[in-house]
Amino acid sequence: MTPPSESTAGVTTFADYVRGRRAAVDEALGRLLPSPPACPPLIAEAMRYTVFAGGKRLRPLLTLAAADSVTPGGMANDGEVLPAACAVELIHTYSLVHDDLPAMDNDTLRRGQPTAHVVYGEAVAILAGDALLTEAFRVLARGSESDPASLRARRLRTLEYIAAAAGPEGMVGGQVMDVSSTGTTSAVFDTERLRATHERKTGALIRAAAVAGALMGGSSHPVADAVDRYATHLGLAFQIVDDILDIEGVQEDLGKTAGKDADAGKPTYPAMFGLEESRHLAARSIADAKAELRTAGIGGRLFEIADWVLSRTR
Amino acid sequence: MTPPSESTAGVTTFADYVRGRRAAVDEALGRLLPSPPACPPLIAEAMRYTVFAGGKRLRPLLTLAAADSVTPGGMANDGEVLPAACAVELIHTYSLVHDDLPAMDNDTLRRGQPTAHVVYGEAVAILAGDALLTEAFRVLARGSESDPASLRARRLRTLEYIAAAAGPEGMVGGQVMDVSSTGTTSAVFDTERLRATHERKTGALIRAAAVAGALMGGSSHPVADAVDRYATHLGLAFQIVDDILDIEGVQEDLGKTAGKDADAGKPTYPAMFGLEESRHLAARSIADAKAELRTAGIGGRLFEIADWVLSRTR
Repeated sequence: MTPPSESTAGVTTFADYVRGRRAAVDEALGRLLPSPPACPPLIAEAMRYTVFAGGKRLRPLLTLAAADSVTPGGMANDGEVLPAACAVELIHTYSLVHDDLPAMDNDTLRRGQPTAHVVYGEAVAILAGDALLTEAFRVLARGSESDPASLRARRLRTLEYIAAAAGPEGMVGGQVMDVSSTGTTSAVFDTERLRATHERKTGALIRAAAVAGALMGGSSHPVADAVDRYATHLGLAFQIVDDILDIEGVQEDLGKTAGKDADAGKPTYPAMFGLEESRHLAARSIADAKAELRTAGIGGRLFEIADWVLSRTR
Repeated sequence: MTPPSESTAGVTTFADYVRGRRAAVDEALGRLLPSPPACPPLIAEAMRYTVFAGGKRLRPLLTLAAADSVTPGGMANDGEVLPAACAVELIHTYSLVHDDLPAMDNDTLRRGQPTAHVVYGEAVAILAGDALLTEAFRVLARGSESDPASLRARRLRTLEYIAAAAGPEGMVGGQVMDVSSTGTTSAVFDTERLRATHERKTGALIRAAAVAGALMGGSSHPVADAVDRYATHLGLAFQIVDDILDIEGVQEDLGKTAGKDADAGKPTYPAMFGLEESRHLAARSIADAKAELRTAGIGGRLFEIADWVLSRTR
């Protein structure tokens, strides 16, 4: 899918910006992922298979765009920010690998490709997820003796923020709530709990992706907080659109089994509010996200990422 | 099991030292693990169930003993070293939870208690493992604005070392080798590969536990390297003793299903060298471990931990 290109925030179109940043992320991921003989060939292969299975790279793009938006001149120091962007994508990828397992969502197709456990078996898929999560933190911590103290401080703060967002108080907690809510009918599963589940399951890491960029970009507390609020609205919109696409999406475009959530009896926004109202909710969240940027006087590509999240078809 | 108390390295007996340090680790783990309402009650309960299921705490003891041994006066700063000790134990615990899964070793008993997936189901067990691994890095990264730059530098270096040891080049890599070697007869599974598997699967995290203590304790490169070599020998001895106990151990003492490795057709030291020669190999590794300490002029409780690893019955 090509992101919308009609809106431009500078000399480069958004499509060009996304293309360039995605290429930088993919190059860095390829370089940072372990290879034999340092690790067994099988685990290296399984990790690369899942990381290069055609993801949108929304989260690392958010990290880079947030860092760019708080940097005078508009382009952050890639050497400092790319590891954080890659770490977020590695964590996102591990969560997909584990979510797809037979004991969880039991999905055989993801991003249009057979899922990791279909290709490598359950044991190696579990271990590949574990390896991706562990490498994410290694990538974030990696440095050299000559790093300035301020860079070390930013790295530790970013690492702590990402770990909190990815763990039991964030993404993993949301997944636990999701697993224990499947089959619950909308009558007893109230909207507050739906929101709380999604805030953790998908929202927390999207927030962490953006905040990581702001922190690594050296932004002040108030600016980082504004980026956090922007990403909170963005994450909600992302999830609502995800639910809508699960119903409306063409399986081929979506790259995963359409109608899966409804079949599993999972509570979703369209199931609870209807399609029309869900679309309104998503649009309002995106408007709220942009308002946060305007109030803080930042933005840049973050505006266009918000539009993209609303208009995406996969 | 009570550790041997006949040998004393100071005024306190080793048994008292272990008791005191274990209590400190357990108190810190209880404090550091997340609780509701910050996280869903179910994941908090599953994490605590596995962490407080009667582990020996060998790895965090190693971290503390290594830190103590490189600190003038013999007692390291607990506020700095305990998070690293806890992180290593959280990673060890996650690895057990995932290893016990039906798709891996399919073990229903661990440390004398039903394994996590037996109690909470497979999905929550996978997520509890993920949560423990993520929290380990959060605990290591956590700090305050007033932390000195030198503490931040030690923390990042320790985190990077532990992540490398726990990931695809270390523990997870060893588990992949183990999973893909099960059922291989000793004729084709050579001793070099057995050693390489164990060096990763159990050895890497034992090394990281000790080195983390040395690094957080502020030791110089040569001293940290000596601790690393000590722990490499110690890890090998630990694994050989583990293999012996799997054959000889009484199920009740062992707290897990005895004879499991042999039944699964896993290559082990006794299967390859016989019990007698395996015992010799373990004793020689412990002697080598102690020799490293003597050469570097350090030691303290690390000597007694080496004796304990050789004489343990569970």
